Amino acid sequence: MGKILIIYDSESDRRFTETMVPLVEEGAASVEGMEVRIRSVDDAQTEDVFWADGIAIGCPTHFAGVSWRMKKWWDTRVLDIWFKTDGKFAVPFTSAGSLGGGGELTCMALSTMMMNMGYFVFGITDYVAKKESLHYGAVVAGEPRSDGAKEACRRAGRRLAEWVGYYMEGRKELHPLEASYTRFWELAD
Amino acid sequence: MGKILIIYDSESDRRFTETMVPLVEEGAASVEGMEVRIRSVDDAQTEDVFWADGIAIGCPTHFAGVSWRMKKWWDTRVLDIWFKTDGKFAVPFTSAGSLGGGGELTCMALSTMMMNMGYFVFGITDYVAKKESLHYGAVVAGEPRSDGAKEACRRAGRRLAEWVGYYMEGRKELHPLEASYTRFWELAD
Amino acid sequence: MGKILIIYDSESDRRFTETMVPLVEEGAASVEGMEVRIRSVDDAQTEDVFWADGIAIGCPTHFAGVSWRMKKWWDTRVLDIWFKTDGKFAVPFTSAGSLGGGGELTCMALSTMMMNMGYFVFGITDYVAKKESLHYGAVVAGEPRSDGAKEACRRAGRRLAEWVGYYMEGRKELHPLEASYTRFWELAD
Amino acid sequence: MGKILIIYDSESDRRFTETMVPLVEEGAASVEGMEVRIRSVDDAQTEDVFWADGIAIGCPTHFAGVSWRMKKWWDTRVLDIWFKTDGKFAVPFTSAGSLGGGGELTCMALSTMMMNMGYFVFGITDYVAKKESLHYGAVVAGEPRSDGAKEACRRAGRRLAEWVGYYMEGRKELHPLEASYTRFWELAD
Repeated sequence: MGKILIIYDSESDRRFTETMVPLVEEGAASVEGMEVRIRSVDDAQTEDVFWADGIAIGCPTHFAGVSWRMKKWWDTRVLDIWFKTDGKFAVPFTSAGSLGGGGELTCMALSTMMMNMGYFVFGITDYVAKKESLHYGAVVAGEPRSDGAKEACRRAGRRLAEWVGYYMEGRKELHPLEASYTRFWELAD
Repeated sequence: MGKILIIYDSESDRRFTETMVPLVEEGAASVEGMEVRIRSVDDAQTEDVFWADGIAIGCPTHFAGVSWRMKKWWDTRVLDIWFKTDGKFAVPFTSAGSLGGGGELTCMALSTMMMNMGYFVFGITDYVAKKESLHYGAVVAGEPRSDGAKEACRRAGRRLAEWVGYYMEGRKELHPLEASYTRFWELAD
Repeated sequence: MGKILIIYDSESDRRFTETMVPLVEEGAASVEGMEVRIRSVDDAQTEDVFWADGIAIGCPTHFAGVSWRMKKWWDTRVLDIWFKTDGKFAVPFTSAGSLGGGGELTCMALSTMMMNMGYFVFGITDYVAKKESLHYGAVVAGEPRSDGAKEACRRAGRRLAEWVGYYMEGRKELHPLEASYTRFWELAD
Repeated sequence: MGKILIIYDSESDRRFTETMVPLVEEGAASVEGMEVRIRSVDDAQTEDVFWADGIAIGCPTHFAGVSWRMKKWWDTRVLDIWFKTDGKFAVPFTSAGSLGGGGELTCMALSTMMMNMGYFVFGITDYVAKKESLHYGAVVAGEPRSDGAKEACRRAGRRLAEWVGYYMEGRKELHPLEASYTRFWELAD
């Protein structure tokens, strides 16, 4: 079975990022035969990272960078983790206070961090609604309410699981281009 | 008078980025005593850059980077411009095919390019609508239709003009914190 | 056989980026059974991209972004390429005028562009010399002269070939963590 | 007098970033009439940020992002600081384990964070040695030992002080283009 870890940090008050997690999980679990493990930065262990084939990593958008709790989790474990995770897969997600408020940059900051540990990061080419995509990870403002925002969370988890299944388990039928995901020209106006 | 240059590239077919320009201009011109010059990359001259105190620079979001025509304009003029524009001000704007599609990253790519020429780039802290901001420049999907999208374009132009007036003309009353721009907590839900 | 494309842009005068290409090729070809194709942006065809399992993409560092010729190559072919290359592998390389001059940012700009087309991008965790690494792609100042600079170019090509062989051909022995690449603690002082 | 704050985080063991601080201070103090205050993230207070006209902000390069202690300092003070610092100036510096190891990206991550609080960030166009510059902030590998690495730290502090003096105190003679800083073409080979 493919193993997916969802590791996330969420603000203590409104926990918007946490509201994305069940949707990311739903997307990952929508690929048959995936085992999904959910950990907050308060509970996650180094072993969870070693266990996982792919990681969906999420944090709130704070100043367009990785939130301090999430950064601390990795900064303080670097000597345990570095050179043990090369070639695994990672996809980011974040909740921002606003669209245009740094969410894309936060996703890239998460991907940049994971690249440093040798992870593969990737773009998601398909759209989830008209004028809504997650090319660099799932970005929502506040909690995911619209169909597009919810589907962005699901799609991030599903795409991660598809790549894990395709590359780590040789399940050729899981290649995203084999599926009928919506393409942008069907949505242009 | 403060001098503002709006330089932009726009796709030949739908020209969405171009539809942002009159709004950016409106915002810049809303600061009394600003002279605003508009140039497409096809028409812009090196002299326009030297003339301007501040530049609003816009291009379509293509692969989350500076569009090739805009990049060519600067790449091919580097020896004429570099070391002549240090300390001027720049703000980016872009039209993307979708939110989450690379618009923020394109704005940062434009700011990164301008930094290399010694420009000051800056974030815009205020909000333009509920859950809509332009912290790293104005990002719209397609053409600006919503009040928030239109105001993001205006605010980018206005903030640039405010800083030019404040720092280059000593007009203290133009400091954005002297104005009553909407703050995020008024918009939270 | 695994198929590696090296696509590059180089300045017309000194062509420093071009001097990295034979080293990137040497690194890719050091993995047995890899077919390596080299194309400048002047010669590259869309078919070369479809042919390749992995792409090493290089350009000069101009304003910390993708050079205009390289950006044009992709911008003008987006409708032909998008949604046809998801899940392939890419690694960047660049020649900058100086260290600290934007080379890392250019590599990330290249990786960001490739992500938008669904490519996997990755970090390279190992070191190539004391205090020299290529965690985000191979960066050299001018042409590669030092042993470390030369090895960075080779390592970028080799790592790309290793991943192509490992993931696309199931050659488990090619996983980088199976090799004895230098780790940073051996180099710290 | 212009007020410069140097705020930094440094690893507890080797404290390489801390070794850059006296050089950044020397550079800032080389502009007559600048008051320089140095604070580690353990000691810095919100008042230090309000006091300062310009901030030199440094942290170690950990996964190419802002170190967790530095990120925590700002993340946990956002409601006290946001909308009170617009239009101030900031410049980053970092010590990385290696060149090509994420130092430039860390400087941009620091600048991106400061932009979100409305700070002006800027590039430094001049060179400090042959093939050595600090276009996006001062990056050194380990501690600054070479003349170029030391001068990069000094130049970051001096450029910040020059802009504070020029824009906040109207000292026109401090404009960097009025000085005879080395330009890249004198160093090309």
